Order: sequence, then C-alpha cells, then structure tokens
Amino acid sequence: MFKIAVLVSGGGTNLQAIIDAIESGSLKDVSIVKVISNKEGAYALERAKQHGIEARCIRPKAYADRADYFRDMIDDINASGADLVVLAGFLVVLSGDFVSAFKGRIINIHPSLIPSFCGDGYYGLKVHEQALKRGVKVTGATVHFVDEGTDTGPIIIQKAVYIENDDTPEILQKRVMEQAEWKILPAAIQAIADGRVSIKDGLAYIEGSISTE
Amino acid sequence: MFKIAVLVSGGGTNLQAIIDAIESGSLKDVSIVKVISNKEGAYALERAKQHGIEARCIRPKAYADRADYFRDMIDDINASGADLVVLAGFLVVLSGDFVSAFKGRIINIHPSLIPSFCGDGYYGLKVHEQALKRGVKVTGATVHFVDEGTDTGPIIIQKAVYIENDDTPEILQKRVMEQAEWKILPAAIQAIADGRVSIKDGLAYIEGSISTE
Repeated sequence: MFKIAVLVSGGGTNLQAIIDAIESGSLKDVSIVKVISNKEGAYALERAKQHGIEARCIRPKAYADRADYFRDMIDDINASGADLVVLAGFLVVLSGDFVSAFKGRIINIHPSLIPSFCGDGYYGLKVHEQALKRGVKVTGATVHFVDEGTDTGPIIIQKAVYIENDDTPEILQKRVMEQAEWKILPAAIQAIADGRVSIKDGLAYIEGSISTE
Repeated sequence: MFKIAVLVSGGGTNLQAIIDAIESGSLKDVSIVKVISNKEGAYALERAKQHGIEARCIRPKAYADRADYFRDMIDDINASGADLVVLAGFLVVLSGDFVSAFKGRIINIHPSLIPSFCGDGYYGLKVHEQALKRGVKVTGATVHFVDEGTDTGPIIIQKAVYIENDDTPEILQKRVMEQAEWKILPAAIQAIADGRVSIKDGLAYIEGSISTE
C-alpha cells in the first residue's frame, strides 16, 4: 500500500477527490495516512474524520519559531510513514528544510497551466481572476513536484480547460476543479504510486498512459 | 465577400490552411486578395500563385527608411481592399504606424498558449524548444488581435495540444500546427468575417459557437 499525507488549508475539495477516487477504486493501492491543516476549523479536517482518516491541525502561530513549526510537521509526516506528501490547497510557504526533508516526494496542484498565472501571489481565486483579466481562452491545472521555488518544480500532469464568454472567477474555478484538478491529482498520485513517474534532467515523465477523463 | 490580406515570411503552411479551408468550403464568403512576403523566394508566394492569388514580395531592405517600407505595405494592403490583415508566420516587427493603420483589423497566430512562451524572441521552433525545456505537458496555439506589444493583444481563440514524452521541438511544432494552428486560424477568420467577434474592455469575445476540430 502506497501511503500519502495530504496537507490542506481550506475546504478540502481536492482531498475529497482523492478520498472519492480511493473509495470508488479508481485510485488503487493508495491510502491516506494523514491529513494536516494549518488552519483550525478547516472543513478538510472534518472530511478526513468522516472517512476515518487521522487528521490534525498544526498552526504555525502556535510555534515561537517557523523552523520549529516545520520540524514538527516533518516529524509528524515521517511518523505517519507517508511515501508522498500531497499539497492540496495548502497555502503555507514551505521552508527549504521541509522541501529538503521530502525531496522528490512532495507534489502540489495549481489551478492554471504553469507557467501561466503562477508564482508568488497566484493562489485560489486570484489565479482565475488574472486568467480572465488577460482574456485567455484556455486555462487548466497542473500537478508538479515541489522544489525550492514557487510553482517551479517538474510538471507531472497538466489538463486544459476551455473558458467561456460569461465566466466569472468563481464559475471558472469550479470548472477547473471539476474538469481538471479532481482528475489529474488522483491520476498523478496513481502514477507515482505505481512507480511510473521518473525525473530526468529536472523534468518529470510518466511512463505509459494515464486517464484524466 | 470578406477580403483578407495574408502576410508571410516562410513556407506558408498557415496560408495553405486558409486556402484549403476556402477551397473546401469550410471557410465561407472569404477571399484572399493579397499575399505579401518580406522574403524573396518564400514558398508561401509560390503557394499563392498556384491558387491564383496576387502575391508580392516587399523587402524591408529595399527601402532606405523603415517608415517607407511600412508606408508601401499599408498602401498596398489598402489598395487590395482587404478587410483584415492576417499575420501567418510574418516575422517582421511591425511599426506603430502599421498597427494604427489597421487598428482592430490585424490578427496573428502564435504557436503557444499565450501568455506562456510568447513575447520578444519567441517565434517558430524556439517557442517549442522553450516549452519542452520547461517540461510543460500542455501547449497549443493562439490567434489574437495585434496591438503595439508583442503577443499582447486581445486573444480570439486558443486551442490546447498535449505534449508526449518523446516530443522534439520539430515533432511538437508539427503537432501544434496540425491540431491547433490550421484549425483556429480559419475559425478566427470565419468568426471575424461573420461579424461575430467583438472587443470589450480590451478583450475579444466570439458570439456563438466555433468549430476548431
């Protein structure tokens, strides 16, 4: 069984997509061993508990030092036995120590086609606001490995989503979630769990086919 | 009949896609009244002649002054009665005068999903080299109105193209042409000819549906 820890900050819709994929059997031989939120009362914690998954809130503000916060996170994730750390709407900027501790074993989902609309300041609804402001007709989502930069790591999967004339940031956010994020995040986890993802010259490749429909 | 002038620099595969769409009847009530190349011997000129289209080479170097070059181009296009100027692989940086002369009536095709891999220095094969270097899994093509900037004008249509593990810049360039460029350029021209494209607050919208399959 391939074990994952999922880090969240909010509602946890991507966490729910992973849970659903596991429960429906479309995501095979993968189990969520831990959910950690930086925010108390994040609904994601509730979702985890409803499905019998160990869930914990670790608040940065509860620590005198940021390094202590990440040290506790690293220890907690290591204790869970997780093979992979999945950032599923986790809005804390990671420390270099944290990234190093799970080098090549942290993935993130971003609601745009990187390198468009990504980097510092681009998260959540703001990504879709900026895409609509530029007037693009295609956007999408990206699952990538996390490195020291913001949204700069090797890209594992991307999926395109078409924009419609009367889209608002909210409508677009929902469509990108439904058509892209909830498909490619479980697909990326499955591919990694199957040992089909390799990194070569700083780029990620999936061997064989993947289903993101 | 909606009249277009097509500006080219090279082989003219996008010009051919427009010609094919007109001849097959998928692009309706549109005629190419002029093809202009900045390069002598561009195969695009040959393609035009083969289909009975007036074709001319206007070389910037033949003019003492760049303004004179663009003045001649403007006069030539105006004399042709073109309603729309289509840049189909035209590698000359346009002057402000030229852009002003056809304000809202010049479109360009770019072989990426703007705002990724566009701007100064991104043309032809280099676009695909950079996309592969970044390791994106989705790229595509964009048709946009031309404004004073490079690839900054209102986007009319975009289409996504998926990247494969063994893609080279050459293979990817061919796939982006076949799957995206040759579809969206005629589609954009048709929509403009039909009067279904409007610009609002600096962004372009197509009324009704378009076919880019």
